[in-house]
Amino acid sequence: MIGIFDSGVGGMTVARAIEQLCPGLPFIYLGDIARTPYGSKSSETIIRYSMRNTDFLLEKGAKLIVIACNSASSTAAKALRSHYDIPIIDVISPAAEKAARTSTSGRIGVVGTRATIESDVYRKRIQDISPNAQVYGQACPLFVPLVEEGWLSQRETKMIVKKYLQPLRGKQVDTLVLGCTHYPLLKNVIGPRIGKGVSLIDSSIETAKHLKIFLDNHPELVEDITSTTTSHFYVTDLTQPAQALASKIFGRKINLEKTDV
Amino acid sequence: MIGIFDSGVGGMTVARAIEQLCPGLPFIYLGDIARTPYGSKSSETIIRYSMRNTDFLLEKGAKLIVIACNSASSTAAKALRSHYDIPIIDVISPAAEKAARTSTSGRIGVVGTRATIESDVYRKRIQDISPNAQVYGQACPLFVPLVEEGWLSQRETKMIVKKYLQPLRGKQVDTLVLGCTHYPLLKNVIGPRIGKGVSLIDSSIETAKHLKIFLDNHPELVEDITSTTTSHFYVTDLTQPAQALASKIFGRKINLEKTDV
Repeated sequence: MIGIFDSGVGGMTVARAIEQLCPGLPFIYLGDIARTPYGSKSSETIIRYSMRNTDFLLEKGAKLIVIACNSASSTAAKALRSHYDIPIIDVISPAAEKAARTSTSGRIGVVGTRATIESDVYRKRIQDISPNAQVYGQACPLFVPLVEEGWLSQRETKMIVKKYLQPLRGKQVDTLVLGCTHYPLLKNVIGPRIGKGVSLIDSSIETAKHLKIFLDNHPELVEDITSTTTSHFYVTDLTQPAQALASKIFGRKINLEKTDV
Repeated sequence: MIGIFDSGVGGMTVARAIEQLCPGLPFIYLGDIARTPYGSKSSETIIRYSMRNTDFLLEKGAKLIVIACNSASSTAAKALRSHYDIPIIDVISPAAEKAARTSTSGRIGVVGTRATIESDVYRKRIQDISPNAQVYGQACPLFVPLVEEGWLSQRETKMIVKKYLQPLRGKQVDTLVLGCTHYPLLKNVIGPRIGKGVSLIDSSIETAKHLKIFLDNHPELVEDITSTTTSHFYVTDLTQPAQALASKIFGRKINLEKTDV
């Protein structure tokens, strides 16, 4: 069983990409809606929540953890890896690798929550691969509330996207990492506003690809995993907007089960 | 000692109003930043958090609780009153009373978080006083993120305010309740967009007035209160934007102390 957690519903874009790339692979998803969002909270608090989420998934039988949240990946992945003795996949490395491979000019932009951008982890990971890359981060704290409000293509959304991206346009990046699992839902608004020639890197899709390769290389894990039950979606709080967004991401009705962690 | 709690920093507009109206009255403030915001969460979750906050304030010696959060007031005040045997003041009743007394046409608008508007508590309280009043609620989920991002007068903020207020303009209200403690910070943007003749009711100021009257009528409480120590500001998570917003609200540097509840 694969365990996936996120601060809320955004990480379902990762779960959805995994479902499409690894059909038949069951997972347990935990969305910590009772404490969402993580991106505006301190590292200490995000680490504490991430450990609780991981404990819950392990109790449910997870053999591998996917941190489907850029804020948690950027601040808590190290703490989780040193604390737990199972494979832990974060969303940062796959997106950073793809960005480093994609950029030809070496000028790469990263958009994310305040926690993700302040951690500076994308710059470090990208420069581990391409030491000469110039990485420009831009925190976009209003993107998550806009997505959660369902304002995916409103005029106000377009203006806010344009405003946040303005500094990155000045840097003439040729690659932009969507460093938050909510942001793929704004892809059609972000694309034209960062510029035609700029490649968008979707951390959700890259993470699913990375997981697939990891499982191909660890067939014993897959054997163990696929012998078990169907996927489940747990949330620490149940609200109508979360239910609607979950169904929007999957394109079908998703049954969210309330739990405490 | 007076105990004040909120989901985050917004309730400091209530604390600030209390400080101005009752100078020298010490209080303990608790901002539950680690779980903010409450307004998009379920009643069940908001009640659980509100009880924890109240327990913390009682441990610190509070003899009276002010729920400085419209979302918590509208969903948890009843549960708190039946569970604790001390005076509990919420932000809804004072604002509702003021709105009922202010409106001459009987057409009253209320803006707030999704939790506050869905609870329908403002309509009920206003109609307890003015049974014939017509009360129109409008959830504005993006106002809190905009305030927390510090976008108090940006063009995008003005457009979003206009968009949310549009349905209320159609109702020709003569009074508008700012039913969230963050919203007074948007007063200068909201005022011109709801219309010149419309009276804005600030739940923070009305609550402070209500508290003052309550204390004038219970001098034994005041005696007990003022014999103790100075005010303290506790938060369950410490972030730079919260620190900045606190200082903005009080117009001076506020020392936030981190605590767990």
